[in-house]
Parts: sequence; C-alpha cells; structure tokens
Amino acid sequence: MPEAPLDELAAGLTSGEITTDASVLEKWRTDEARLTSDGRPLCAVHAESTADVVATMRWATRHCVPVVPRGAGTGLAGGALASRGSVVLALERMAAIRELSFDDQLAVVEPGVVTADLARAADERGLNYPVDPGSAARSTLGGNIATNAGGFRCFHYGVTRDQVLGLEVVLPDGRLVRTGHRTAKGVTGYDLTGLFVGSEGTLGVVTGAVLRLRHKERWPRATVAARFPTAVAAARVPLELARDGVRPSLLELVDEVTVRALRTWEQSSEPLVSEGALLLGQSEGEDAGRTADGMRRACERVGAEAVVVTQDPVETDHLLDIRRRALGAVEHEGRTMVEDFVVPRSRLGEMLLEIRRIADEHGILIATVAHAGDANLHPTLVFDPAEPEIPDRVWAAADDMFRTALRLGGTLTGEHGVGVLKKRWLGDELGESGMQVHHAVKKALDPLGIMNPGKIL
Amino acid sequence: MPEAPLDELAAGLTSGEITTDASVLEKWRTDEARLTSDGRPLCAVHAESTADVVATMRWATRHCVPVVPRGAGTGLAGGALASRGSVVLALERMAAIRELSFDDQLAVVEPGVVTADLARAADERGLNYPVDPGSAARSTLGGNIATNAGGFRCFHYGVTRDQVLGLEVVLPDGRLVRTGHRTAKGVTGYDLTGLFVGSEGTLGVVTGAVLRLRHKERWPRATVAARFPTAVAAARVPLELARDGVRPSLLELVDEVTVRALRTWEQSSEPLVSEGALLLGQSEGEDAGRTADGMRRACERVGAEAVVVTQDPVETDHLLDIRRRALGAVEHEGRTMVEDFVVPRSRLGEMLLEIRRIADEHGILIATVAHAGDANLHPTLVFDPAEPEIPDRVWAAADDMFRTALRLGGTLTGEHGVGVLKKRWLGDELGESGMQVHHAVKKALDPLGIMNPGKIL
Repeated sequence: MPEAPLDELAAGLTSGEITTDASVLEKWRTDEARLTSDGRPLCAVHAESTADVVATMRWATRHCVPVVPRGAGTGLAGGALASRGSVVLALERMAAIRELSFDDQLAVVEPGVVTADLARAADERGLNYPVDPGSAARSTLGGNIATNAGGFRCFHYGVTRDQVLGLEVVLPDGRLVRTGHRTAKGVTGYDLTGLFVGSEGTLGVVTGAVLRLRHKERWPRATVAARFPTAVAAARVPLELARDGVRPSLLELVDEVTVRALRTWEQSSEPLVSEGALLLGQSEGEDAGRTADGMRRACERVGAEAVVVTQDPVETDHLLDIRRRALGAVEHEGRTMVEDFVVPRSRLGEMLLEIRRIADEHGILIATVAHAGDANLHPTLVFDPAEPEIPDRVWAAADDMFRTALRLGGTLTGEHGVGVLKKRWLGDELGESGMQVHHAVKKALDPLGIMNPGKIL
Repeated sequence: MPEAPLDELAAGLTSGEITTDASVLEKWRTDEARLTSDGRPLCAVHAESTADVVATMRWATRHCVPVVPRGAGTGLAGGALASRGSVVLALERMAAIRELSFDDQLAVVEPGVVTADLARAADERGLNYPVDPGSAARSTLGGNIATNAGGFRCFHYGVTRDQVLGLEVVLPDGRLVRTGHRTAKGVTGYDLTGLFVGSEGTLGVVTGAVLRLRHKERWPRATVAARFPTAVAAARVPLELARDGVRPSLLELVDEVTVRALRTWEQSSEPLVSEGALLLGQSEGEDAGRTADGMRRACERVGAEAVVVTQDPVETDHLLDIRRRALGAVEHEGRTMVEDFVVPRSRLGEMLLEIRRIADEHGILIATVAHAGDANLHPTLVFDPAEPEIPDRVWAAADDMFRTALRLGGTLTGEHGVGVLKKRWLGDELGESGMQVHHAVKKALDPLGIMNPGKIL
C-alpha cells in the first residue's frame, strides 16, 4: 500500500489539527480495558467540527485508511484501541452543547461533551440527564453512545439508547446523515438511530446527538443499605421486591470479595463494610419512604444482618460512595479485568454461585459488583501484575463465565460493549445467521471496512 | 415470469394452509387505511408455525415472489395491503403466548397474539403490558411490532419498541435469526431488534418476540378532565405542567371539531362535551392526588372553563371513553383519512393553529385528537363518501400538514408507520443520504426485494 498522503489530509481540515507525535500515538494504542493494539497508528486528527470529520472520512475512503474514532478512552472493552496504520479521529474538542431546551426537554450535543458536564448543564436548567456510567466525570457522550453506556440509574431511567432521539452521523465515505427526530416519539423509517447507538464506531462517526432530558425531580429520596452473609443471599431481594410490588429506582450489590477489598484498602470505618455482602437500594418520589420501608422488610425477610435506612443527603452520599469506590479498592489487589454481562433477573443468585465456582476452579480472585435490579454483573478478575497482558487462566475463567451466562439465558454485555475483548464469544450468542446479518449490515454501511476495523466483528 | 408453483408451496408447509379463494384475497387488498392495492394477491398462507414461515420464505426466494406479512389488518398507513401477485403471509393463527414469567418480567409471544389478550394474560399474573393502541382489542402484537405502535399510555411507558427485548425473525431467504436478549439490559452487537421493530414487514417476518412486562401497579389513579375554549388554549397545559414539575401519566387532547362530532353523533350528555375542546389527564402512584391537583391548577391558570377531578373508577372510564369514541364520532361525518405525526413539545399549539389554517385553505373538515404529552397529533381529514378513494384536495391538505410539521421540527409519523400512505414525503424528512442508507439496509437484508415491497421505500 502506498503511503497515505498526510499533507492532503491536513489540507482538508477546516480548523482541526493532525498529530504524528509518537508518544501521543503510542498512548492511544490502549484504553481502560488495558489491552494494547497491534501497532502504532499513522496519525491522529483532532477534529473541531463536523466538516473536519467529513474531510477525514472522505480522505480515508479515498486512500482506504482505517479510522478509529475516539472520545475519552474510558471504554472497558477495547473499542477505542488505535490499530496499526489507522487514523485516530479524536473528538474531544467537539465539546459544544449546541442547544438545551427546557420546553422540548432535550439537548443537542457534540460527541466530545463530557457526560457529567451535560448532567450539570441540564441540572442548572431544571432538567436531568440520567445516564451515569462509572466514568461519567471523564467519559464523553460520543463514547457513551458508541457503547450504549449504562450506570447506576439505568434501572429506573434506561440506558443511553433510551435517551437518544436522533443523531448526526458521518458515514465512512464522508456522507452526512441525520437520523431520528427531536420529537418525543417518531417511527419514520428504519430505526437507524438505534442501529448507530452501541455500534462502537464501526458504522460511522457520531458528530451530534439529540438527547432526551427529563424534568428534574423535586421529590424526596430514601436510601437503604443492608449487610448480608453472602451476595447469593442478597440476590433474593430483587425477586422479593417484585413480588411485593416495591419498586426502587436503584439497586446495587457489592459482593463479599469486594467488601473485603474495601475494608482492607479503603480502611472503611462503615460498620456495614465489615464482612459479608452489601446491598444498596434507593427510592424516589412522594412514596420514597414507603418504598424504602418495603425494601427494609424484604431485606430482613431474606436474612439481612443489619439494615440502615436514611433520607439524609450526606449519609446517602456516604453509602453510595462505598459502591463507587468498589473498583478502586479491588484494583489494589492486582491487575484487573473488569467484566460485564447480564442474566435473566431470576438467575442472579445462580450466576453469583457460578462465579464462586469459577473463581475456585480457575484459582482466580473474582470480586463482583452488580446492578442487581437488572441482573447486570461486573465481576472483576484479579491477577498478578507481573504476569503478561492477560494470562491464559484469566481468559479461561472469563470463557467459563461467559458460557455460563449464555447458558443461563444471559447476554455477553450489558453496557460496556464487545470491542475487541468479547469478539471470540460473539458467535456463541448471535448464532450463525445472526453473525451473517451483522456482517451484511456492516458491509452495507462500510463497504471498504475502514470504520474501526476489528471491533465487534 | 412463469407461474409460481403453489403446489410446491403447499407441500412445504408443516401444518399451515393455502387459500386461493378470490373473495378472501380481495378483502386483503385493503386495510384500515382504506387504500386499495394495485391488484389481487396470488394466494394466502395461513402460517401455524415458524416452520411454515421458513418454508414460505424459502419458496418465495426460490421463485422471487413478493410476500406481504399480515396480522389483523388494523394498520392505518397501508402497510399490510396485499399487492398484485404477492403471497399474503397471514400470521393470526400463530397466537400462542409461549411463556409468561413473573420473575423475569417478560412474555414470549407469537405474532398473532391479540394485544389485549396479552394485556389480560399479564394482568392475571400480576403483570402489566402497557402498550394500548386504539385497536388493541383486535390488533396483533406482530402488527404492533411492525409499526412500532403506541397508544394512550406510551407517554408514561414508551412505545412498542421500548417493550421489545428480543425477536425471532425469518429473513427473506428463510434463514431464522434471533435478535436481542431476555435480560433487562443487553448491548451485544448491533441493535437488530430495534431495526426490525417498526420496519413494517420490509426486512423479515417476526415469528416470535420477547416482550418486557412490568409489575402491575397497585397504586391509586386520579383523572382530570378540563374544557377549554379551543384546543390551542389547552395546548399550553403540557408546558405549564413541565414548568411546575407536575407529571401526569396520560394527557389526551380532543379538539373542538371532534367535540362537536361527539355531541352530534354520540348524543353525549357529558357537560364537558358541549363546546370548545377537552383535555384529559391521568396520574398514578402514591402522589396521584397531588399530581391531579397540579393538573387542575395548571388548567385553570391557562383558562379552562370547567375542570373535573375524580378518583372514581366508573367516572374515570366514562371520561376516557369520550376520547376512545372520538374517531367513531368523526367517522359519521363522512369518509375519513386518519393522520399521525409529531411536533416538538413546544410547538403543539402552533401546529394546532396551522391545522385550522389548512382546514380553511383547503376547505376540508379536520378533527384532531392528540397524545398531548408527546405532541403526537392525529388529525382526521373528512370528505364526501361519494368522492373517489382519496380526493386531490385531501392529499393537498395532507401535504400542507406534513410539510408544516416538518418545518416545525416534527416527524411524519409517531405510531402508525409510513406504509404506502406517507412514502411520498419520506425523502423530505430523511434527506438524500438518509434515503440512501435506508436503501442500503433494505438491500443488505432483502436483496431480491420480495419483503412487503412498495412499503416505506
């Protein structure tokens, strides 16, 4: 392949810049999945406008150069790894909130807006952007859209896809397409918006999004924290709540391995963080107190050893912080691989038991937190920092875990995406014809295969 | 084209039957959009299993015969019209609820299940299927999925797409593909589930669906009905409610032309149905009464002439029945064409004014109801039954209406679909590259163009 002319690329940009600095490019070979790509990218384009993205994609199509779109690089599945010879399309400078409408309950944003910045801007206008991935303080909305990110509050408010009304997307050949609508409902044509959300940059580059906002709640909240002998015991709570008709807006589980790490590394003085597992629930609305009572009763009925109920904002923050600090505590134990999959709600306890089995059989420390309301589990596999990138027995344990989740009727990823991390299991879930349809859709939109190649498919 | 061998088609079916009865086939040239197809279909297959659908599609691909999937034919955009020489794939006999799980909060259904039957079955198990299109007593879930149907309650619970977790789809060449998941969350691969929902039978045949159910509410409801001098005046209420932080779960508007038809044809003795327009709101939850109070205050503030608030179930039913009988009353005025589009929430009043202008300019009676919370309008255009199918001035008025809705930032359809009715305006909304992407996706999944041809695209 002849050298792709970078001067031609640079000349096409309106205001964006090109970087060929080796140390910058080297950094982009990895992301928070801690995998490393096969080689150094050709260059990076710091796009400052949709026009820059259009110019980059036209150039890339002309010279058949792969392009890897990139936000903050906080992804946990390797979806933003810059591969050898690719152009990194850095979108962090496209960080404008183009519009924020109270009456239409929406924001129009550029992909580089940091998630927490939109949440803050919405809040100041009496509105609410509810998606709160763990990395919300750093992650960009473009990345959230690419991975269909979730978070604590999606049990109540849905994931990123549920907030995206419309998109502005630059196709691999540089054509600009607008999908969806800025109305509350809309079924005109195929749901291309939904197709691009979660496609991990493999079908086009999102350069703008219309996001649904909600009016900010002015209602009370109540928080419940309960200590259980084991995570398996706590896993019965969501089913009990459903039978009782009690509906929390948040339900998070911290297993006993994670509690131990929190106690060891965070010197937590919280009496609930001593041994066993922890379940955190939150309710909101006029009936928040009553819902919290229902949670307390359900926890006690299935064997909670201690239950705290609070409506105090400081104590609430303190309790949720335990969950927020979970991954950081576990990271003190060694090198980590954070996983993400979902099982049917009724199978949460069974899956937690299987994780214990897998940890024992493969001799690996596994610390699990879960969005328990949705049965979305995040086991973190811990191994020796001296070991190579990801040792075989870690892959074997992950393999056992994913196959078990699929056998229980689950799905490989709930909010992190497939990236490069889960490609090897994709066919197990999608089946042969499912894979064929994926390839057909990919080929229809990216016939040259230059959009984030090697991710998902 | 040589005659396609129907004996070979019949022989391939496991238990389904073929009909070539001219009177049955003739009936299927139309649906509730009241348009008629270009000619008589070749035959109809009454499928009784997924295997029958697979056999039909394999045969259709082999002989390149168009296939038109059909549920109850209650569609309002002509999406189920059986075209000349096509095979009608009737799915009404595939009406099993394969599974209904309380703990997993889901149902697995076949496409021929009547919407209200699922709602009833769910209710008996303490669960709730919330989508309630006007035709719920007759429409099938397959048809709801094909059109992404909505209804009164989708302001609160979302449209059909928001309930579909996964699908079983037979592709045009007979391959069977399973999309999505049976878990609460899932982002594995492209969102093919969302792509098939709302695709109006143009990409494949849905033979099964995993639908999200919710736990049945045991909480109180309150209903508010308010009479306003005009619909335009009532349209200010949703914006006021948003500013006040008051959130109803249902908000329906009946304009003054519809109120007049109700009074004339239904001999309504309800004092609220006398003149002017009617707004109906409902709240649910522990704070239903407080929310209803908020609605009453907002209605009074923007000029309601009379307001009724009730928690009595009989009176509630009576009030909602006014809205339910609206279309029937208008149908007494002449032949009708029911429309469906959405504008941004802030533009509801402006759009209602434009509808009055359009009615005057084109000399057509237009009676409008609206899902006011979502600014989803259903104007019904009324004309002389002696006139041909749809007179030119009705098309001209519709054209004016859709262009106006698009100019205000709206979308062509909120819940009925494009079908054949709105094809001529599709390019105006999607733009050139949007249309190209639609064609590329269609070609990727249906290269022979045999799946419900002529619909949407």
